[in-house]
Amino acid sequence: MLKMTYMQNLLKIQYPIIQAPMAGTDTPQFVAAACNAGVLGSLGAQYRSPEEIRKAIAEIRGLTDKPFAVNLFALDQQMAPDDEQITQARSHLQKYYTQFGVPLPTVESVKIGIDPEAQLQAILQARVPVFSFTLGTLQSNWIEAFKGVATFLIGTATNVKEAQVLEAAGVDAISAQSSEAGGHRGTFIGSPKSSMIGAMALIPQMVDAVKLPVVAAGGIMDGRGIAAALALGAQGVQLGTALLTVSESPAHASYKKAIREHDADETTITKVFSGGAARGIENAFIDETSEISLLPFPYQNSLTRPFRKIANETGQIDYTNLWCGQGGRLAREMALKDLVTELMAETEAVLSRVAALKLRL
Amino acid sequence: MLKMTYMQNLLKIQYPIIQAPMAGTDTPQFVAAACNAGVLGSLGAQYRSPEEIRKAIAEIRGLTDKPFAVNLFALDQQMAPDDEQITQARSHLQKYYTQFGVPLPTVESVKIGIDPEAQLQAILQARVPVFSFTLGTLQSNWIEAFKGVATFLIGTATNVKEAQVLEAAGVDAISAQSSEAGGHRGTFIGSPKSSMIGAMALIPQMVDAVKLPVVAAGGIMDGRGIAAALALGAQGVQLGTALLTVSESPAHASYKKAIREHDADETTITKVFSGGAARGIENAFIDETSEISLLPFPYQNSLTRPFRKIANETGQIDYTNLWCGQGGRLAREMALKDLVTELMAETEAVLSRVAALKLRL
Repeated sequence: MLKMTYMQNLLKIQYPIIQAPMAGTDTPQFVAAACNAGVLGSLGAQYRSPEEIRKAIAEIRGLTDKPFAVNLFALDQQMAPDDEQITQARSHLQKYYTQFGVPLPTVESVKIGIDPEAQLQAILQARVPVFSFTLGTLQSNWIEAFKGVATFLIGTATNVKEAQVLEAAGVDAISAQSSEAGGHRGTFIGSPKSSMIGAMALIPQMVDAVKLPVVAAGGIMDGRGIAAALALGAQGVQLGTALLTVSESPAHASYKKAIREHDADETTITKVFSGGAARGIENAFIDETSEISLLPFPYQNSLTRPFRKIANETGQIDYTNLWCGQGGRLAREMALKDLVTELMAETEAVLSRVAALKLRL
Repeated sequence: MLKMTYMQNLLKIQYPIIQAPMAGTDTPQFVAAACNAGVLGSLGAQYRSPEEIRKAIAEIRGLTDKPFAVNLFALDQQMAPDDEQITQARSHLQKYYTQFGVPLPTVESVKIGIDPEAQLQAILQARVPVFSFTLGTLQSNWIEAFKGVATFLIGTATNVKEAQVLEAAGVDAISAQSSEAGGHRGTFIGSPKSSMIGAMALIPQMVDAVKLPVVAAGGIMDGRGIAAALALGAQGVQLGTALLTVSESPAHASYKKAIREHDADETTITKVFSGGAARGIENAFIDETSEISLLPFPYQNSLTRPFRKIANETGQIDYTNLWCGQGGRLAREMALKDLVTELMAETEAVLSRVAALKLRL
């Protein structure tokens, strides 16, 4: 009956909520838990090999019969930096590898990079319900191939131009990533800096510019945010930070604590972890490396990943990426299913409250 | 009956809308027109002398019997830069003064600056209904003095800490300036850069942190934005860019056109016009001066003002400040009263629509 439920009907999800893909944190178990709680779970597949992608999808399918999404970013093969660049970038990081007692990645291992075509092929062959992507658009042969296996396509836009390009390419929905969002910026037209557009301005302009359903992503933490996103014209919301702190989330307890207790103005956009611009909580590593030379995405990620993995697993949060949106302090630690139930009840309460306001004296 | 109407009841305004102070654009005629349209008009008094402030307030009072606000920013006396700094900053601007055929301001004239105490005294003595301010908090003797003449006080916060400081100081309401906002950033704790917080994240966190009513400012352009702000917990909204394009606005037709037709990702934060960080539409002057040495606020303003005045009056928009929020393209050119009526009807329609949504399948 209602336009808003388009996303729900189409995706066959109970609530108009997508669990944001969070490459590095979203295990198949977590994704399946999201699906079983009535939202669209998303597997961040970016750093997984084709074989790992196949395995993760099979695991999700073993844990839920609900629809789910698989997500990639950086759809184009990136040119590897030359040996000299890698050697220079490596030299800045030796101290962290010494600190964590793991070997510094070799120049050759950093160069390996990612093969987006092979990743796309693995996702296509798995005939997943939803494929979402960011940091680019999808070439027409891939769009056709995904449509051929009935995979729903969600592209990510950080400005109006990108939304129009994605619509013209033939995707089924747009994820509107506003400046509040944690994690990697999806900008692919213009610079990430010039596309730091707040949801209040981004969502209505994007809704007006495209016919596709728009999902609001960035800074949405509770029923107030969900209600606001719907008021702005979004057909649904994508939650990342809000779901990072739930019981089922594999994020370390120290990371969850940092999300809930940092100051709101202590998130920053940094490239030091992966080479791509991403929003996270400021920490010692960001402060110490503000001047070093970086490799482009995803090579900087390969170069920093081994020590971050240990820092992450042991809760040494000053030496790993603490992706977090600007609303992090509103995050709650509770079971995912309970949180989702609470969010929907809040949204309904907020909408009842504001719809009853006397707006004219 | 309802918490939302607190602002309306208290301020005796018809709608929960404040016309944002826009020093340089808001004439007494424009402010009075806003008041007569049912919103709280605000006079941006920053660049006016005490005598000019008294005169403008008298003019507003001659044009409306409705309440209005007077606004200042930079409440503390700024130390004047030394002659060498001024001489260097002047040298970068000679070409613009040659281009516009006006004399470059002398070192002495730039040094004059602004006397905030004298401005405050003029506003206090005028016993205005509302005094709003930004870029700082008000000392307790001033808070008491304004309370003594029943002036309602609105402080501006760009992050949660500032809101808490303003509440402790004793103001009556908080204007929450999110990153979407056009014009000067009001940050006074931390750097303007670290306090670029989108409304979706800023408003609910601020509402939770203070007991005072919070007014949402930044990126709000239509009924969707007003409804979203109310959903996020704001008690009212402050509109700047949305009101700059109305028939009664003294902004030049070329400026109005730029607001409505620029690309959303073509606004930027710049200090080149005034020395203070402010959001505006990118133009030739910003591009040409990205590397020059600037004076601190408000001395850079004094230094650039004379040629900007001519550029502004003649619609040469590449050489004046085009303050604009991130939602500028949604602005409308129509009579102020009609716009306000339309905005309220839209807000009610949006709230009815979203309150009727079926949120759970």
